[in-house]
Amino acid sequence: MKTKTLIIGAGGQIGKIVVDLLQEDKKPVVALVRNENKAQELVKLGVETVLADLEGGFEHAFKDCNKVVFTAGSGGSTGYDKTLLIDLWAARKAVDYAIKNNIQHFVMVSGLGAANPDEFVSDIKPYLVAKHFADNYLLDSGLNYTILRPGALINQQGTGLIRISRPANFNELIIPREDVAKVIEYCLANEDTKGNIYELFSGNEHIDSVFKMDA
Amino acid sequence: MKTKTLIIGAGGQIGKIVVDLLQEDKKPVVALVRNENKAQELVKLGVETVLADLEGGFEHAFKDCNKVVFTAGSGGSTGYDKTLLIDLWAARKAVDYAIKNNIQHFVMVSGLGAANPDEFVSDIKPYLVAKHFADNYLLDSGLNYTILRPGALINQQGTGLIRISRPANFNELIIPREDVAKVIEYCLANEDTKGNIYELFSGNEHIDSVFKMDA
Repeated sequence: MKTKTLIIGAGGQIGKIVVDLLQEDKKPVVALVRNENKAQELVKLGVETVLADLEGGFEHAFKDCNKVVFTAGSGGSTGYDKTLLIDLWAARKAVDYAIKNNIQHFVMVSGLGAANPDEFVSDIKPYLVAKHFADNYLLDSGLNYTILRPGALINQQGTGLIRISRPANFNELIIPREDVAKVIEYCLANEDTKGNIYELFSGNEHIDSVFKMDA
Repeated sequence: MKTKTLIIGAGGQIGKIVVDLLQEDKKPVVALVRNENKAQELVKLGVETVLADLEGGFEHAFKDCNKVVFTAGSGGSTGYDKTLLIDLWAARKAVDYAIKNNIQHFVMVSGLGAANPDEFVSDIKPYLVAKHFADNYLLDSGLNYTILRPGALINQQGTGLIRISRPANFNELIIPREDVAKVIEYCLANEDTKGNIYELFSGNEHIDSVFKMDA
């Protein structure tokens, strides 16, 4: 029986924290990374690691997995060519591989504004366009999905306190990456998050009570 | 009754030729351009022109039209941010506007490789990813579409001689922009091109006989 969770983008900031959390909690995880040094670091920590370039094929990483998290992102430091190739095209491939490999839960890390890139005046609108189409491809795939749309990501330590309703104040449309990672772990462990799209912000409620209230 | 054809991207190289061809043949056309100087040039030539930025709203341009050609492209001179905003997001908006405005034929200028951006090793793969999703959005829209996927565009004078089957020789995957424009005019005038996707290359057959053989 397949029981592992594949983290696509395990070398990224959120992905790395998700891998740590799952390892700590003794949940079987496979980390997919492109960078050889990052792969070696993960292997040293005892993490099962697959080295692959998301611009090529990476279906072999799905082999023993029944859940997938897509948190690969071209990030701010690369160009929008990589946004098209990774955030959109590699996401599409991940969905196709997930279908072929009978994945039971696909957690997509999207972004606030991906529902409608015209909603906000945003410097990252091209990124939101890519995420919009990636999210919709997952939505139409027939897979069990959870789509997470966090506000602006900050590196501050997580509190485990969040909200999924949108705050009125624009300055509050933020959330620490660590809290996004905790929500990912929660979603992987809770089937009733399947079939949902959640916006995520820092808040005052514990993660489990937020989602239980919503369910 | 609406009888005009809207050319989205009439300031572009292919769009400009399409406008010229339709004007010459006394077919009612509306040219949508972003650049004010290009708009003034078109107005001087007696072309009905709408000035609008495809990054904003442009539904007003559809008002008197029953056909649309989408040949707007960020082009080689801009970044992939514009590919996401124009080739993908503006194309999506054009499809939505076309549905709302009861457009009877939507001709999309796509590109060779957009069916599967992994098919060729290509410098413009990010562009093909954007075109792939734009094409699919049109395909799923319920509109009457014709999708054209020309090979590499060259500025050589057109011959009116084309092929729609793929040549074996990689060097022959080319076509003059003028011939693409002629094919667009042909498709607009011939209903049996609806519901089809055509690759386009320079060849030995006249446009009308190529499409009649195919029909």
